[in-house]
Amino acid sequence: MGGGDEVRNKQVVLRQHVTGFPKEEDMAITTSNTIKLKLPEGSAGVLVKNLYLSCDPYMRNLMNAGTGMPGYLPNYTPGSPLFGYGVSKVVDSGSPDFKIGDLVWGITGWEEYTVISSTDGLTKIEDTSVPLSYYTGLLGMAGFTAYVGFHEICSPKQGECVFVSAAAGAVGQLVGQFAKLLGCYVVGSAGSKEKIDLLKNKFGFDEAFNYKEEEDLDATLKRYFPEGIDIYFENVGGKMLDAVLVNMKLHGRISACGMISQYNLEKPEGVHNLVNVVTKRLKIHGFIQSDHFHLYNQFRDLTLRYIKEGKITYVEDIAEGLEHAPAALVGIFKGKNVGKQAVFITRD
Amino acid sequence: MGGGDEVRNKQVVLRQHVTGFPKEEDMAITTSNTIKLKLPEGSAGVLVKNLYLSCDPYMRNLMNAGTGMPGYLPNYTPGSPLFGYGVSKVVDSGSPDFKIGDLVWGITGWEEYTVISSTDGLTKIEDTSVPLSYYTGLLGMAGFTAYVGFHEICSPKQGECVFVSAAAGAVGQLVGQFAKLLGCYVVGSAGSKEKIDLLKNKFGFDEAFNYKEEEDLDATLKRYFPEGIDIYFENVGGKMLDAVLVNMKLHGRISACGMISQYNLEKPEGVHNLVNVVTKRLKIHGFIQSDHFHLYNQFRDLTLRYIKEGKITYVEDIAEGLEHAPAALVGIFKGKNVGKQAVFITRD
Repeated sequence: MGGGDEVRNKQVVLRQHVTGFPKEEDMAITTSNTIKLKLPEGSAGVLVKNLYLSCDPYMRNLMNAGTGMPGYLPNYTPGSPLFGYGVSKVVDSGSPDFKIGDLVWGITGWEEYTVISSTDGLTKIEDTSVPLSYYTGLLGMAGFTAYVGFHEICSPKQGECVFVSAAAGAVGQLVGQFAKLLGCYVVGSAGSKEKIDLLKNKFGFDEAFNYKEEEDLDATLKRYFPEGIDIYFENVGGKMLDAVLVNMKLHGRISACGMISQYNLEKPEGVHNLVNVVTKRLKIHGFIQSDHFHLYNQFRDLTLRYIKEGKITYVEDIAEGLEHAPAALVGIFKGKNVGKQAVFITRD
Repeated sequence: MGGGDEVRNKQVVLRQHVTGFPKEEDMAITTSNTIKLKLPEGSAGVLVKNLYLSCDPYMRNLMNAGTGMPGYLPNYTPGSPLFGYGVSKVVDSGSPDFKIGDLVWGITGWEEYTVISSTDGLTKIEDTSVPLSYYTGLLGMAGFTAYVGFHEICSPKQGECVFVSAAAGAVGQLVGQFAKLLGCYVVGSAGSKEKIDLLKNKFGFDEAFNYKEEEDLDATLKRYFPEGIDIYFENVGGKMLDAVLVNMKLHGRISACGMISQYNLEKPEGVHNLVNVVTKRLKIHGFIQSDHFHLYNQFRDLTLRYIKEGKITYVEDIAEGLEHAPAALVGIFKGKNVGKQAVFITRD
C-alpha cells in the first residue's frame, strides 16, 4: 500500500434505472477507473479493499428512479457503482475505531476498493474462526434480520406454530433454525425441490413445501397448520400473504421483512384478506434490522456459540469474481440461488 | 315484575344469513313470543329490560353464514333475535354483582327483554348524570374502542399527524377529539357535507374532507399531510387504506379498528401498497376493545371528566322504537347515520 499507489478499481455500475425484473445488462463492469490507495489528508473515514459482496432483495428497490425512501439507503445513480453490504479489509484509516488490516462488514461499493467516508454503519469483525463470508449473511445483515424479526418483533413462545416464506433464503433459513431452537413447530416454503430438501433435511424444519406446485395456498396452509399460524415471517408478499392472513390464529404476529415477489411488478398484487387483521387482532410489523443495532453483539455472540456447538448451519451460494456479481444479483429475483447469495472478490 | 308475570317480548330476528349489503327484509319484527319476568330457580344470570340498542359495523359480520370467528361473538342464527351492545335495566338477578333496578351496558338481545346467562361482559352504570344513551356509544364499546385504539395501540405523541377515516362515526368522532386534546394535528374523512361540517365545527378537527368528492385519495392525503401521516385510525379499509399506506411516515402506526367498506363485498378490494409496511417499518395492529377491558374504568373516568368540562362532545343518531332497529342498522352501511347510531326502546 506504500504511500498511496494508484491502482485500477474495477466496478459494477448501474447503467440505467430499472423497471420490472432487473437484467444483467442493467449493470456494467468498468475497469477504466483508478483509485489512490491513501485517504485524503484529514479524512475521518476508511479506505477498504472489498473481499465479499452480499446480494440482497432490498437492492432491487434502490434500482428504481427517484431518490429513494427517507431513512433508507438512497437509490443508485446511473453511471455510479452499486453499493450494498460486504466484507472488507481496511487499507487506510482516518478513524480512531479502525486500523489498517482490520476486517469489517457494512455498506460498501460494488468495486474493488471503496472510500467509506462515514464509518457509522461499519462493524469490526472480531471472530475469524468462521468463514469470512458469514459476515455477508449469517453473522451480518441477513442473520441479524432473522434474529430481530423473529425474537424482537414476533415475541415467540415455545410450542407456537411458525411459517416462513422464502425459507431457504439468506434470512429464512436462520429464522427456521431459531424457531426450532426455541421449540416451535416450523414450516417453510420455497420454490424448488432442492430447497425443500434443504429445509427438511439440513435446517430441520418440521415441514416444507414448494409453493410453485401448490394450486391453492390457502388449502396448503390449512394442511400444515390445521390449528392456524401464530407467527408468519413475511419475505414474499402478494398471494402468499393473502393465504396466510386467512390462516392466522387469534393474536397472530407477522413480521414483515420483505416482499420479494412484489419488487419487480409495476403494479403490485392486491391483498384481499386484510379484514382478518381486525377480526383476529393481528399485528403486522415492518422492520429493518438497523433500527435495532444495539442488539447486534448479543445476536452475534449467541449465533457464534450456536455455530460452534453445531446447532446452526448455513448454506451459501457464492459467485466467484466481481464480473459475476450482476448475474448473481439478478438471480435472486428468479430464485436461482440456493442459500445466501454472495460474491467473492479476493482473498485479502 | 311481581312474581314473574308473562309478557309479550317483541324481537328483531334474523330471517336468513346475508350476502352483500344487508337489507331491512333480512330481519323481521316478531311479537308472538312471551317471556316470564322471573329467572329460573338457580340461575346465576340476569333478566333485563332493554332500553337502548347500539348499531355497530361488526354486526354485519355476524349476519354471515357459519359459526363466526373464534374469540369473537358467534354469528346470528336465522329465526333467533340479533344481539349487540345495549343499555338495559335489571329486572331479576341471580348474580351477586347486580340487583334489581341496576342499569347495565353490555351484550344483550334485540328484543324487549333478555335473559343474560353469563354476566361476564356486563358493566354496571354508576354515573347517570349524562344521557343513558351515551353508554351505547361514547361511554360504551365505541368510545372505549376509540380510547384503546388511539391511546394504547398507537402510542401517540403531542404534535403528531393523525388521520381518522369514518371520522364522524361512533368511534371516529372521539378519536379525533382525543387526538386534539393531546395536541395532535387531526384530519378526518367522511361521506357527506353535513358530516364534514360536524368534524370541523363541532369536533374540532383541523381539517376534514368528503372522500366521495375526491378523485385521487393519494393526492388528497398529500394535500393535508405534506409531511406524511404518523397515525392512521383505520375504520374503512380498501382504497383508503391503500392511499394511506403511500402517505405514512417512517415508523407510522395504524390501528385497525374496522374495515366497514369491505364488509358487504363478496370479494374484498385488493390493497396494493403493503410494501410500504416494510420500507417504512410500519406497524398495523388489529385490536378489539374487550381485550383491554382492564382499562375501562380509567377510560370512563377520564371521559366523564372531559364531558363535564365541556372538552368532549358527542353526536348521536337515535332511532325511536325497536321496529325501526333494522332500518337503523342497515343505514350505517350506507353512511346514513350522522354520529353514533342507536335505537331507543323504552324509558325504563
